[in-house]
Amino acid sequence: MNKDNSLRPFFRPTGIALIGASQHPEKLSFGILQNLLHPEYGFPGPVYPVNPRASEILGKTCYPDISQVPDPVELAIIIVPAPYVAATMEACGRRGVKAVIVITGGFREAGPDGKTLEDRLVAIAKQYDMRLMGPNGIGVIDTNTPLNTTFVKGMPLPGKIAFLSQSGALCGGVIDWSKQRGIGFSVFLSVGNEADVTESDLLPYLQDDPGSTVITLYIEEIHNPRRFLQVAEEVAAQKPVLALKSGRTASGQRATASHTGALASNDAAYQALFRQTGIVQVDTLDELFDSALLLTAHQTLAGRNIAIITNAGGPGALAADALERHGLHLAVSAPETIAALQPHLPAAAALTAPIDMLGGAFPEHYGLAVKAVLQDHSTDGILVIHVPQAVVDAREVSREIIDAVQAVPADKPVVACFLGGDAVTEAAQRTLAAGIPTFTFPSAAAAALGTLYRWHNRPPVDNVPPESVAEADRQCAAAIVQQALAEKRTALSAAESEAILHAYGIPTPGSALAKRADEAVARAKAFGYPVVLKLQSPDILHKSDVGGVKVGVADDQAVREAFAGIIANARATKPRARIDGVLVQEMVSGGQEVIVGGTRDPHFGPLLMFGVGGVLVELLGQVTFRLAPLSSAEAGRMIDDTAAAKLLAGLRGAPPADRDALRQTIVRVGQLLADIPQIAELDLNPLLVLPASRGVRAVDPRIILNGS
Amino acid sequence: MNKDNSLRPFFRPTGIALIGASQHPEKLSFGILQNLLHPEYGFPGPVYPVNPRASEILGKTCYPDISQVPDPVELAIIIVPAPYVAATMEACGRRGVKAVIVITGGFREAGPDGKTLEDRLVAIAKQYDMRLMGPNGIGVIDTNTPLNTTFVKGMPLPGKIAFLSQSGALCGGVIDWSKQRGIGFSVFLSVGNEADVTESDLLPYLQDDPGSTVITLYIEEIHNPRRFLQVAEEVAAQKPVLALKSGRTASGQRATASHTGALASNDAAYQALFRQTGIVQVDTLDELFDSALLLTAHQTLAGRNIAIITNAGGPGALAADALERHGLHLAVSAPETIAALQPHLPAAAALTAPIDMLGGAFPEHYGLAVKAVLQDHSTDGILVIHVPQAVVDAREVSREIIDAVQAVPADKPVVACFLGGDAVTEAAQRTLAAGIPTFTFPSAAAAALGTLYRWHNRPPVDNVPPESVAEADRQCAAAIVQQALAEKRTALSAAESEAILHAYGIPTPGSALAKRADEAVARAKAFGYPVVLKLQSPDILHKSDVGGVKVGVADDQAVREAFAGIIANARATKPRARIDGVLVQEMVSGGQEVIVGGTRDPHFGPLLMFGVGGVLVELLGQVTFRLAPLSSAEAGRMIDDTAAAKLLAGLRGAPPADRDALRQTIVRVGQLLADIPQIAELDLNPLLVLPASRGVRAVDPRIILNGS
Repeated sequence: MNKDNSLRPFFRPTGIALIGASQHPEKLSFGILQNLLHPEYGFPGPVYPVNPRASEILGKTCYPDISQVPDPVELAIIIVPAPYVAATMEACGRRGVKAVIVITGGFREAGPDGKTLEDRLVAIAKQYDMRLMGPNGIGVIDTNTPLNTTFVKGMPLPGKIAFLSQSGALCGGVIDWSKQRGIGFSVFLSVGNEADVTESDLLPYLQDDPGSTVITLYIEEIHNPRRFLQVAEEVAAQKPVLALKSGRTASGQRATASHTGALASNDAAYQALFRQTGIVQVDTLDELFDSALLLTAHQTLAGRNIAIITNAGGPGALAADALERHGLHLAVSAPETIAALQPHLPAAAALTAPIDMLGGAFPEHYGLAVKAVLQDHSTDGILVIHVPQAVVDAREVSREIIDAVQAVPADKPVVACFLGGDAVTEAAQRTLAAGIPTFTFPSAAAAALGTLYRWHNRPPVDNVPPESVAEADRQCAAAIVQQALAEKRTALSAAESEAILHAYGIPTPGSALAKRADEAVARAKAFGYPVVLKLQSPDILHKSDVGGVKVGVADDQAVREAFAGIIANARATKPRARIDGVLVQEMVSGGQEVIVGGTRDPHFGPLLMFGVGGVLVELLGQVTFRLAPLSSAEAGRMIDDTAAAKLLAGLRGAPPADRDALRQTIVRVGQLLADIPQIAELDLNPLLVLPASRGVRAVDPRIILNGS
Repeated sequence: MNKDNSLRPFFRPTGIALIGASQHPEKLSFGILQNLLHPEYGFPGPVYPVNPRASEILGKTCYPDISQVPDPVELAIIIVPAPYVAATMEACGRRGVKAVIVITGGFREAGPDGKTLEDRLVAIAKQYDMRLMGPNGIGVIDTNTPLNTTFVKGMPLPGKIAFLSQSGALCGGVIDWSKQRGIGFSVFLSVGNEADVTESDLLPYLQDDPGSTVITLYIEEIHNPRRFLQVAEEVAAQKPVLALKSGRTASGQRATASHTGALASNDAAYQALFRQTGIVQVDTLDELFDSALLLTAHQTLAGRNIAIITNAGGPGALAADALERHGLHLAVSAPETIAALQPHLPAAAALTAPIDMLGGAFPEHYGLAVKAVLQDHSTDGILVIHVPQAVVDAREVSREIIDAVQAVPADKPVVACFLGGDAVTEAAQRTLAAGIPTFTFPSAAAAALGTLYRWHNRPPVDNVPPESVAEADRQCAAAIVQQALAEKRTALSAAESEAILHAYGIPTPGSALAKRADEAVARAKAFGYPVVLKLQSPDILHKSDVGGVKVGVADDQAVREAFAGIIANARATKPRARIDGVLVQEMVSGGQEVIVGGTRDPHFGPLLMFGVGGVLVELLGQVTFRLAPLSSAEAGRMIDDTAAAKLLAGLRGAPPADRDALRQTIVRVGQLLADIPQIAELDLNPLLVLPASRGVRAVDPRIILNGS
């Protein structure tokens, strides 16, 4: 990745000025200075407090103005009242500062005036070629530098997790909790309003940061999803990125005209974004950090089989249940493993699945079992559970587990649960300190293993549509859209919609206009019976209402009768209507109904939807979204996300459907949405997927344009 | 409930003998004696160690034999080697002991010999009218007596949760953890092998125990589910009972002949059992105790609207997501609440949903907000979140919350989250001690609120079938089954299956045997066209293969042709086959396909299944089970459990189906399974539910008998 180096001064500046430093211990800026100067984790380079009304704070000379601060000063932390921030930034720019963290709030988040003020900050940053973090953020912690620009009391434990939070208020709680939990961080960031530096800037930096092996994100909103898609795709291919997105279930869907529009939600779009970048999404804060903890120790989980080693059957059974909930399985010991363990474990111990050594298990039994299972080829990972017993010292159990893991080189995750309180605290701490991810409850361990599995087995990310779509006749489609917009129409006619689909190589049922009855018979014969006959008249919109539609017309004679009947009905109801003729349409049968739809999210741009069609779409509500355009492989994954995959494979002896054609159609619809920005919503509901090699037919396409 | 008093001596004995008491501190029995005599939580009545090789242990006179122990001695705790337990129990019986806890293992769990030994213990208990808890259990803790018969180090905190565990090994871990977590218990039980006293005996005792307000169960297997159903139904109507069942995802389904059999699992049966008793099932240990903690404080949650009060937007948004995941909603503040708070909260605070007082919120803001929301009629419960901030003392926040809750009398749950570590530990402890359920993460609080909602809004339990089913012609059905078994057939013919359904008032499509073509025409006219014609011959099993089935026969002429064709085909293929005639069948159309099935679980007895039918049953795998027989209301809930409810209500303009008839049919199938124990499996797949008031038709019933 071709990166600029402009973010380095936020993490490893040569020198720091704190502008707005206060002498009063109850002020936030005093807390910042304490962190910057802390005897244990203080910044190792020069720190210059700036305050015109003080000469010295915490033993440091205070400067009246940034212009008077001596070299080196690459980073300025600004915590002056909002109205003074712009001028302060200008002074920083003139002084040659490279990076500015604005802690002060009262900008965009406070309303339109704040927004104007914030825009001014961005302009100043640009003018002086400075980078701006914030405003309204708590800044940067880097435990390796070390550097802590926040006012949060204390420093996180050192570790290998980078955390980027879109909530500053959350940070104090997470730091405090993580210290008790024993989870450490490399970098801890609160990006505030993201006026300049955003998560899309920071991800590449964190990718290159050798101290960070896992990146965790707390996301409220991604300001530029398309840029994020590009950047994150590249980062997540190299380093695990885990995301916790809040506001997932916010109510208040916007009103829409199409099925797809109604089902599309902000959450669906974010899910699509994370999938298409290879980011693994989790549901809760503890899951985020528990999973990250595991990923700092192991990034491989080759299969789903996790062995459980326990001294208590109940927690073992609960762990097995939890593994299944998280998409994993309880491993069954290989015969050699059982043979190796049998002579050494208590006689009544269970050796197959789980390995239950019973309450009387001694510490050395743990060591033997872990060593044996690490060498068991039928096992992909190990979950060791210890429940405190009256006569066993949990610390010795810990030592045995640690020794075993260190003795047997194997690329398998081993995680531990010490299910208890004070009796196991020390054992758990020692195990964790030895690099073995440790939990209290088996359910948390299983959740973390599930995240690791999802990460390690994530599908390759590929968002580039195949070359074949380039054949699409974009100009033809664009012309139809232009014409409709020129006529102030936003709902395209069936014929227009079909023509656009044809331009993109998406077939619709055969259809031909017949002006006379014998012409209709000839068309019908060519399609094969039965057929549908529909009145074609620019003056009659609701054709069914005037008896203008006949379905299941089965033979020549019936076509003649239907043709005559339709014309007669139309004449009788609307004598002055212009009649172009009767449309004869292929009646497609035997296909599997699916829905392919598109919508244009104001924030995300074109979103593609796929799901089971017909009545099932309402019943199951099971649809999946992607950002368009997309690749063939991704289209295949859309199919696999839903029950459609099973249906298309052929249930109950039904012939398998033409999955290839469906995949191609999804890709083409995606390209269409990407190519023609005036398309607001599109529904192929249903799209009929015919038996293998017979293709698909879009039966009732609807395209709605953006009027504005 | 009419209860015997025989369990009282396990919890509140007049005196206790510990048989097998050891002088050696590393022995489990020494640990038991330490617990019994503990200066803080020791048993207040007399405790007599029994050991022929010691004169005194821990300052207590030791008796050589139970016969020499002075009065009073109602409870004996036995921890002698397995071979001596029977004799020891006999001595206890002779001595007039009322209750025995056998800690010793090596009985049923150790194999057939152990089972024989265990049966002997049960016989002795019966002979002497003693109750037996165990063997292979750790015994009883009652924090109110106080009494602790276990060897687990330490005593749980006192509290109002009763915990009954089928895993002894789990107990030490839970006690240790719960002390650190601040969760207290009234009773803590490990029932061991349940040779005599089972969870079905203990539930009524715990129902009556005034110290216990919530009952929690860790279940591995319920030995007598039918008894449990009866008992638990009554207990759970009075007190919340929460269950954590392990082994939910155990593989190894048994092979079955029917659809229902294949879908039935042990887990499905347990789920049915818990639902039909009003027990609320949870998934993890922490969810079990977190939920119980909340239920000790509140047993009412009238609606789904939970207000969130927070000083950090991120955790507030995460809490809202978690509420939705657990079936609850974020409450929106009433205008009066907003008006009341506006003048007092920080200007930038959000007041609607969630109430976000921002990082600068002072402790008194918490008090004001909690008071205002407690009085808000649009809110059913409150989740207060505090994330530690540099300048706010969490202990003062705690005090404000406690004061507010105490100041406003409202039957609404208030729960608190202190999201942090050391900075909030004391605040969290104080809040919890004041009776406000307190958590670290919002997700845990939301899960507990979800459990409370499920408990408070559980449907009324009613497992009694309605009177109407009494009309069923049991004798007719039983006679058909007997006849088939006499002929050594286990698969009933279509005609037999239909006759049994008719005996229970379950309709099948009209069907009549015609010997001649004009007879067939008359039958067909009576049913209405189209009809199905099927060859009827005892010598031809696969009728389709010989051209013996014609579907969609549409008029008189077609019936004549089909009749002749079927007979001719049969004669041509099997000239010597006996031909009884041709079956004319009503062709039911326009109904909604569902599946109603029954299976007989060796452990649970008759189980009833319901789900969406046809291809959807395979696609969705969405079926629900109940123990049969069942009530009409429960049958209705089966329908509501699945997507069938939506389908039957009429999707996309389809007419609503005859739900009443379906409910009745489910009840009748349940009664049939209960009445005729020889029925092993039954499938009505599909059962067609016709439009309202037109009833149902079981199209292709299959009944399989138990051959043995």
